[in-house]
Amino acid sequence: MKEEIKYIVFDADDTLWVNEPFFRETEATCCELLHEFAEPQLIMKTLYDLEIRNLPVYGYGIKGFMLCMIETAMIISNGKVPNQIIEQIIVLGKAQLTHPVELLEGVKETLATLSKHYPIALATKGDLLDQQRKIKLSGLSEYFSHIEIMSDKKQADYDHLFKALGVAPKEIMMVGNSLKSDVLPILKLDGYAVHIPFHTTWIHEVVEEEVIHPKFTELECISDLVKILF
Amino acid sequence: MKEEIKYIVFDADDTLWVNEPFFRETEATCCELLHEFAEPQLIMKTLYDLEIRNLPVYGYGIKGFMLCMIETAMIISNGKVPNQIIEQIIVLGKAQLTHPVELLEGVKETLATLSKHYPIALATKGDLLDQQRKIKLSGLSEYFSHIEIMSDKKQADYDHLFKALGVAPKEIMMVGNSLKSDVLPILKLDGYAVHIPFHTTWIHEVVEEEVIHPKFTELECISDLVKILF
Repeated sequence: MKEEIKYIVFDADDTLWVNEPFFRETEATCCELLHEFAEPQLIMKTLYDLEIRNLPVYGYGIKGFMLCMIETAMIISNGKVPNQIIEQIIVLGKAQLTHPVELLEGVKETLATLSKHYPIALATKGDLLDQQRKIKLSGLSEYFSHIEIMSDKKQADYDHLFKALGVAPKEIMMVGNSLKSDVLPILKLDGYAVHIPFHTTWIHEVVEEEVIHPKFTELECISDLVKILF
Repeated sequence: MKEEIKYIVFDADDTLWVNEPFFRETEATCCELLHEFAEPQLIMKTLYDLEIRNLPVYGYGIKGFMLCMIETAMIISNGKVPNQIIEQIIVLGKAQLTHPVELLEGVKETLATLSKHYPIALATKGDLLDQQRKIKLSGLSEYFSHIEIMSDKKQADYDHLFKALGVAPKEIMMVGNSLKSDVLPILKLDGYAVHIPFHTTWIHEVVEEEVIHPKFTELECISDLVKILF
């Protein structure tokens, strides 16, 4: 494996820095704001259904999430949610868009070590400006030879990325927290995939099946990468 | 000039296809929806001020525009805009996000001719997914060797792009409808810039000064590019 790998590609959200918990916190506050209209369970279900329905037009990211929260508030209040609550939803979203970046443990050290031996790319999906902001604030930019902000992470999207990197899929190792977005499409393309589970995963990214594949590795934390690559 | 140019880079919105008029149409409908609260002039001013204030967090694109319209509605109604109007603003935004792509005259033919002699790149700013959708629907993808969706079009952003293209700024010809975004930063980097004015320009992109520069050309329509390059 070690000899074959020519490029290591990292997912960003919940692989290098905290992301999903901020969505869940925003969602919890949104449920509190709307508590007079419905139980949290119903609000969260309405919000999730709307997010999935709007995904083809909004794509991933916080701005689409804000628009879905506003739509949810109007639906579950039966068209009676006061302006003040919608205003607070917008404030919540803006707070998430300006939230400081919290690196996960071992990230900086691992990237510093690996980048001495491999070119490293970042492949992330979400709002363009928001992802660029996080990359900048993370202080990790220097380790990446290539940064790709993608609208999705399906096989075709990766195929496009690997062409841009000038490497064959079998020379790639992709590292990420999502089996659905970071692991399965890569294994199908014959690349190496490393899964580092994170404690919080968005339902849309959850994969129930167990992954068994000769090119698949599951690690507890990012620092363990050094053990399998050196 | 002809001998020096190694790459032609095109802006997309209002250079290759119609964009700004759709924003203005959406804005006009939004003013109608809010007519009971204020005059169109005040609504448009409030909306524009909000767009500029929110630009650092939202960036360019329709989703941020939708959020600004909702905020505008709440401000000018003094917190009394009914849910039904906010719902209609969201419908308006979604309609814009799924609007068919209307190519400008001569675009396809010009790109077909130029792409036989030069590598061509597309450099556009806005929502990632929305721009990708328009590129796909435009039927122009085959002409571009490189597509860059940028969060902004300042000198540093172009510098980054030209590095990715592997060319020096002086070997670039940038073609676009915005003096501010497509012309001035390129001239400062010592590249060639071609301005093709479009009838509608967002106030934020308007430049009052006259541009006089040896590497600057103003054309009436995209087809005229062939005349100056061959």
